[in-house]
Amino acid sequence: MASLLLLLFLAAITVTSQSYGSEFSIPRQIHLLRPQSGAAGSHVPGVTCLSWRLGVETNNIIGWKTVPAECEGYVGHYMLGQQYRADSKAITDEAFLYAQSLKPDGDGKDIWVFDIDETALSNLPYYAEHGFGADPYNATLFNKWVLEGKAPALPESLNLYRKLQSLGIKIVFITGRTEDQRTVTTNNLKKAGYRSWLKLVLKASSYSGKTAAFYKSSERAKLVSSGYRIVGNIGDQWSDLLGTNTGNRTFKLPDPMYYIS
Amino acid sequence: MASLLLLLFLAAITVTSQSYGSEFSIPRQIHLLRPQSGAAGSHVPGVTCLSWRLGVETNNIIGWKTVPAECEGYVGHYMLGQQYRADSKAITDEAFLYAQSLKPDGDGKDIWVFDIDETALSNLPYYAEHGFGADPYNATLFNKWVLEGKAPALPESLNLYRKLQSLGIKIVFITGRTEDQRTVTTNNLKKAGYRSWLKLVLKASSYSGKTAAFYKSSERAKLVSSGYRIVGNIGDQWSDLLGTNTGNRTFKLPDPMYYIS
Repeated sequence: MASLLLLLFLAAITVTSQSYGSEFSIPRQIHLLRPQSGAAGSHVPGVTCLSWRLGVETNNIIGWKTVPAECEGYVGHYMLGQQYRADSKAITDEAFLYAQSLKPDGDGKDIWVFDIDETALSNLPYYAEHGFGADPYNATLFNKWVLEGKAPALPESLNLYRKLQSLGIKIVFITGRTEDQRTVTTNNLKKAGYRSWLKLVLKASSYSGKTAAFYKSSERAKLVSSGYRIVGNIGDQWSDLLGTNTGNRTFKLPDPMYYIS
Repeated sequence: MASLLLLLFLAAITVTSQSYGSEFSIPRQIHLLRPQSGAAGSHVPGVTCLSWRLGVETNNIIGWKTVPAECEGYVGHYMLGQQYRADSKAITDEAFLYAQSLKPDGDGKDIWVFDIDETALSNLPYYAEHGFGADPYNATLFNKWVLEGKAPALPESLNLYRKLQSLGIKIVFITGRTEDQRTVTTNNLKKAGYRSWLKLVLKASSYSGKTAAFYKSSERAKLVSSGYRIVGNIGDQWSDLLGTNTGNRTFKLPDPMYYIS
């Protein structure tokens, strides 16, 4: 079942990236599955999967290690169905509307921060094979997947990236991926359609043991002290978006599969 | 139709407050309506009501004046159906689990900040008669409703309030209601079941024209400088929860009906 879903997902991603240019090019008909509402989550004691997902997305439910086992099917249907993509598009559309409203200074100092995993790139092909976050995180297997360098773009993020660049806003990636993954990450971004950027910030070993929120805040502070204006910031984790120098506006993409503090 | 829904809601609130004491006393069978998913929102150009609601709850869609007209039915069904209450309960359950995990100092300095409207109290009886936020905000009518002093408790918040007090955590209300509404607000809170608190902070005229985020941050700063520890903070607006001295953990209740910056 997971393999079939994965195949459908990959077909969707492929068709989308080939037909970039139209807002409506995402072949929704390929997403046969719809998110289940209500009943799907009734096995989780006290909390339905629907409420659990809202709690996660609003930063109410934090510090969780795995998706509740009873919600694996719900999360899988959500991620591979129409709703994840529709939710992502609503966010990136809103982000672009905001970006269009800005008065660019034209001094090249306007930047937009992108997270990478589940933001610029999608690891859904990996997670579809590993319980959509219901299996415990396995660093060895996940790093093996990262080193393959074949994560597809999240099409809505790629679309936003291109539109922001057309407005003269420069892109800075700040990722929890570590410095030793620079080459594979650079190649993966390019292969997925992200052809240029101002900076790609990877987690230096000096941040080892620090939270993503601390690391990302520290790196944003460096950008600001270099004279850049963070006009926007997009990520799938609240640790991308909270802290200091968060940016003039932040955009939270969906991610019901894992939590990073 | 709205009147019938309102009646069902009031019946639910009344039965709940009478049968407080059991976690499962909320008479779900009274909530006959279920939130519609997907199709209900397909009339909003580009964004379904489902995606719009997620965007609102995650602070991606901000600064909006009214619920999109096409989403009035969706929001009404959500607010009067099971899901609003289930989502609220998931959040207050999580909040209580967190509160239980704290090691109280026993010095009486642990406080929890509660917002009032759509947090401690529910204005749903008002909004059910005014398009669930799809009608433009009418300050005259809304203030008239506030002055009636008959807003019911949001039962999940009242339950949390009681449980927090049983742990020795003191309650501070910080509300956007203005100082001249102190008496009616005090009476309404007591009538709804909130019998005691450390402080009730209403918006002083000196904050006129300032955002809720600024006002609430400033008032939280005063609490902290008086030696209180804000162990938790719950509200329905991000302006309750962002800014400075936000508290050790924040809890965002659902509110797809209005936005306050």
